[in-house]
Amino acid sequence: MKRKTTIDGVVVTPLGLIENQLGTLLHMFRCDESVFSRFGEVYFSEILPGVLKAWKRHKLQTQNFVVPAGNIRVAIYDSREQSPTRGMIEHFDLGRPGGYFRLTIPPMLHYGFQCLGDVPALLANCTDIPHDPAEGEIVSEDVVGVRFPVAR
Amino acid sequence: MKRKTTIDGVVVTPLGLIENQLGTLLHMFRCDESVFSRFGEVYFSEILPGVLKAWKRHKLQTQNFVVPAGNIRVAIYDSREQSPTRGMIEHFDLGRPGGYFRLTIPPMLHYGFQCLGDVPALLANCTDIPHDPAEGEIVSEDVVGVRFPVAR
Repeated sequence: MKRKTTIDGVVVTPLGLIENQLGTLLHMFRCDESVFSRFGEVYFSEILPGVLKAWKRHKLQTQNFVVPAGNIRVAIYDSREQSPTRGMIEHFDLGRPGGYFRLTIPPMLHYGFQCLGDVPALLANCTDIPHDPAEGEIVSEDVVGVRFPVAR
Repeated sequence: MKRKTTIDGVVVTPLGLIENQLGTLLHMFRCDESVFSRFGEVYFSEILPGVLKAWKRHKLQTQNFVVPAGNIRVAIYDSREQSPTRGMIEHFDLGRPGGYFRLTIPPMLHYGFQCLGDVPALLANCTDIPHDPAEGEIVSEDVVGVRFPVAR
């Protein structure tokens, strides 16, 4: 398995964190960002300690992940036949401190996630199309033939 | 001060909470909901224990609040001159269990929030226009002449 810093099409966008005496303001996505295409849905996935979920894949939907609470490892595996980074696997540890950014995952990439730490973590996703079970799938590691790079 | 269940224009929308063995999926907003108008921005405000912030008001922006982590009291005061519910104050306790819903606050209403409990809470907001400091304001309780209904 090759390893590289960037799978083709995956984008990491630094986001503002504005601290004041009341708490922290955490940016996620604005319609006037140049990379914004369209709004489909925003939802949260609370991931419990010890949970690992891999692999998922969407045929049409782009994921835009941030982790505003807790910590989550997201791994991405590129099995796209025409991709210049085919066969590569990459992971990102999201959450504070140090990991508050937006991770954009285009369609047809396999991805999975693991809760890091011993408290529930919150994955927020702002997608370009609303959830449609017909375009998403969950595929086991055995079928894909690739293991999730587990944090120990 | 009058008290009533609904200030004109304020909407509470029940949202799906889907529990499984990995954690909980929490809906927030979809573009194909009949009440969806347009996407402006999504961001988070982490509110620390003990914090109370009142009052805020937006001239143009509609707020769509959910609380995916922790618990927050949101109060709304209607000072709109032409409103059928002028003078009313209403509050909502958001967060799980029992308070996972979307609270829509149209422009020109005063609102504030208070962290409930002893852990930081996360307020998520999906607005119809992106943040513009020129259309929002923070006004003290003394200026508005109305106290936030504090949870003890």
